[in-house]
Amino acid sequence: MEKTNLKSDLISISGKENVLTDDLDLMYYSYDSSFLTKIEIKNPDAVVLPKSTEEVQQIMKYAFENNIPVVPRGAGTGETGGCVALNGGIIIDLSTWDDIVEIDNKNMQVILRPGVIHAELNKELAKYNLFFPPDPGSSQMCTVGGMVANNASGLRAVKYGCTEQYILGLEVVLPNGEIITTGGMKSKAIKNVSGLNMTKLMVGSEGVLGIVTKIRLRCWPKPKARGIAMAVYDKLDDAPASVLEVYQAGILPSGIEILDSSAIEAVNQFKPEINLPDAEAILLFEVDGNPPGVEYEGNTIKEVTQQRARYVEWATDTKRMAELWEGRSVTAAAAARVRPDGSRIFAGEDVSVPLSKVADTLRAIRDLGEKYNIKVVNYGHIGDGNVHTAPVINPENPDEVERVKKLVHEIHLLAIELEGSTTGEHGVGAVRREYAELEHGNAVNYMRKIKEAFDSKGIMNPEKLF
Amino acid sequence: MEKTNLKSDLISISGKENVLTDDLDLMYYSYDSSFLTKIEIKNPDAVVLPKSTEEVQQIMKYAFENNIPVVPRGAGTGETGGCVALNGGIIIDLSTWDDIVEIDNKNMQVILRPGVIHAELNKELAKYNLFFPPDPGSSQMCTVGGMVANNASGLRAVKYGCTEQYILGLEVVLPNGEIITTGGMKSKAIKNVSGLNMTKLMVGSEGVLGIVTKIRLRCWPKPKARGIAMAVYDKLDDAPASVLEVYQAGILPSGIEILDSSAIEAVNQFKPEINLPDAEAILLFEVDGNPPGVEYEGNTIKEVTQQRARYVEWATDTKRMAELWEGRSVTAAAAARVRPDGSRIFAGEDVSVPLSKVADTLRAIRDLGEKYNIKVVNYGHIGDGNVHTAPVINPENPDEVERVKKLVHEIHLLAIELEGSTTGEHGVGAVRREYAELEHGNAVNYMRKIKEAFDSKGIMNPEKLF
Repeated sequence: MEKTNLKSDLISISGKENVLTDDLDLMYYSYDSSFLTKIEIKNPDAVVLPKSTEEVQQIMKYAFENNIPVVPRGAGTGETGGCVALNGGIIIDLSTWDDIVEIDNKNMQVILRPGVIHAELNKELAKYNLFFPPDPGSSQMCTVGGMVANNASGLRAVKYGCTEQYILGLEVVLPNGEIITTGGMKSKAIKNVSGLNMTKLMVGSEGVLGIVTKIRLRCWPKPKARGIAMAVYDKLDDAPASVLEVYQAGILPSGIEILDSSAIEAVNQFKPEINLPDAEAILLFEVDGNPPGVEYEGNTIKEVTQQRARYVEWATDTKRMAELWEGRSVTAAAAARVRPDGSRIFAGEDVSVPLSKVADTLRAIRDLGEKYNIKVVNYGHIGDGNVHTAPVINPENPDEVERVKKLVHEIHLLAIELEGSTTGEHGVGAVRREYAELEHGNAVNYMRKIKEAFDSKGIMNPEKLF
Repeated sequence: MEKTNLKSDLISISGKENVLTDDLDLMYYSYDSSFLTKIEIKNPDAVVLPKSTEEVQQIMKYAFENNIPVVPRGAGTGETGGCVALNGGIIIDLSTWDDIVEIDNKNMQVILRPGVIHAELNKELAKYNLFFPPDPGSSQMCTVGGMVANNASGLRAVKYGCTEQYILGLEVVLPNGEIITTGGMKSKAIKNVSGLNMTKLMVGSEGVLGIVTKIRLRCWPKPKARGIAMAVYDKLDDAPASVLEVYQAGILPSGIEILDSSAIEAVNQFKPEINLPDAEAILLFEVDGNPPGVEYEGNTIKEVTQQRARYVEWATDTKRMAELWEGRSVTAAAAARVRPDGSRIFAGEDVSVPLSKVADTLRAIRDLGEKYNIKVVNYGHIGDGNVHTAPVINPENPDEVERVKKLVHEIHLLAIELEGSTTGEHGVGAVRREYAELEHGNAVNYMRKIKEAFDSKGIMNPEKLF
């Protein structure tokens, strides 16, 4: 396929202003937040920015006929290289197709196009006292389409689950250009158990089965009250033990976050005025609901956690909540600054382990950091065992790059060894494919068969997922 | 295949005491709760009751080699003929394989075999202050395996969703005898977004892809308090309007049930001492959580609903809650008795529509009842638009049987017409296959392709789902 033909063919579908082929433009599409795409640069051959299902369909049909790989992309905030064209071909950038088609508040749902930004959606829904609960760290940037592709979650998955829980139906353009609607052709139902669950199969499929062009999403009543508890621990093992005891007391907080000693140190170095207490671990509990219910749960959390914690504080005052949460808010930024010549890289950043193995995991990752002489900062969503690890390296130093690759590989193996997963929320993309068999065994063969059933030519986001 | 060979072959796998081939035994397996299986009797050729994965695997391999249809079955409480062998072959009865393998309360999960009864599971989990939230009406009888196969839900789906939300992983014996584990080979993680979501694909697949032999299920902290509000309406349309206003007030009750005038009449006729108020609709709200939170929500529901309702009562006292709920508890039994010569049949019993269409749906079903001169009783889970319709007929009267078939067909078409689904929670089975294309369009072709990827010979629960 001649690149000049590709350009003119795509222009005939989407118009000149929506097709990019200049090297400088393409370079922007060569990376996401993953470390992989920082060290291995792969440009697509062209980028298209469609704004209708028909356009996406025409692009797909064209690519199908000509055997051109197609990679769907949202805001590019992913951490796995999932939206990068490793084999060249066309990137379909859906980020500018950002219409909220309908807020059907009478039926507790919203219909939207894939490019809507998560925070924007929740801003609109708030006008109706509704919200879409999943809360990724990249809320201000990431698209709902990307969240669907990756089954995104974030801080509040403990109570509210992941994106999949809210997706009622999808319009999907398949690799051959066919359009299907999952969850019922013209359904507005909230409950539907008719047929195989194609909606849930599509959510989290990372663009390897088709391109999501419309999303029907369930909203929830927005809770009226919120509170934050901070608990400070001298012993790391006491932190997950406290989490379990809170559950056993009948409380399901909306979020439970941990900073271990590496994160506490990083935060205090980055912003000394935050002045986090010196400790082995800090837990932050977020509770939401109605005002007296939140007060009750906060007090219960305080009672339960102070049996192990050195210090516990509970707040519902907006200002004090923000102060308590500040350490967590700046952790990612702080991690990036633990060395003057260092950069935080996104690799091995997202393992998930059973709650009972969180302390072992954090200790083992610390030991691995020492083994490879790489600084690591650990924090994450302890409530569901989702550990975030930030290795900090000088990416200009080839030796450090080699060492961090080994470190990351061992972190992934460790997660599987400790009865966890290589990825709790960020997905597989290009960077965790090699663990598919180890994690899933022969189930991977059936994932491949499903892929084949949708994508006989293998053009849909190739080299991803497995 | 000779039936004598079938018998001896199966005995060689599972032992004499676990293989049934006598006509009287087989007849028991010719039906579930569906009307279809009451009027069309189809015995399997044999029934096996395995109690190990290896046995199930051997049975499947044998069936695969000999092209024998296999139908998995739990307690047979389904309402769609899903667990009946319409083409003969082998029924694998999993109801006696009922071990709870491990309550891993440290990791908020439980591992169990498919035959565990729902209520039994929750009794065991209660010892750890945990629970498995979905709450089907058949809780005392139905198996968790059946719940997985049908993605069951029930009263509490409004707040707690369906079974799928809690399933972390499954062991599945595929039609060719291969065994896969979804959600990670040896995972105990709660969060996992690695690979295609095979777990969610299996949940609700009604046994057409394989046989679930082990279930890993997430549990939740058991709420400490509960309350019930009853609101009585003179106008049917005010009931769904009140439901919406409760949501808009930021409240997500754990259940919202409706009895329309037909159900109120049936209950009062069945048990006059319950003495439900004469009304167009009664709503029952169940709220759960912590004590002050429940009290707050109950009072909010009272305030909100009394703007439209003739009468509202809110109770947290155990005795009074039971009294308020009693009308709903007996509705199914009451529906069966509205005619002395009548039986309630399970057909067209489970449509799901958008909340904004619930009143229209109830009116239209009433009109259809008149059109076909069939008594219908309507109730259901209004909170998620899931309407339960009980047609009551004399099944010995061929004319009534013909008329009710037409009525049920029109109810299914009505649901799709009103932007709903033919089934909100009971599934498709054998009885709603004909609506697959109408409801899902060409997406059904891809469901078939997935089926083909798992079941190349088409022996796995044939003639079901689509």
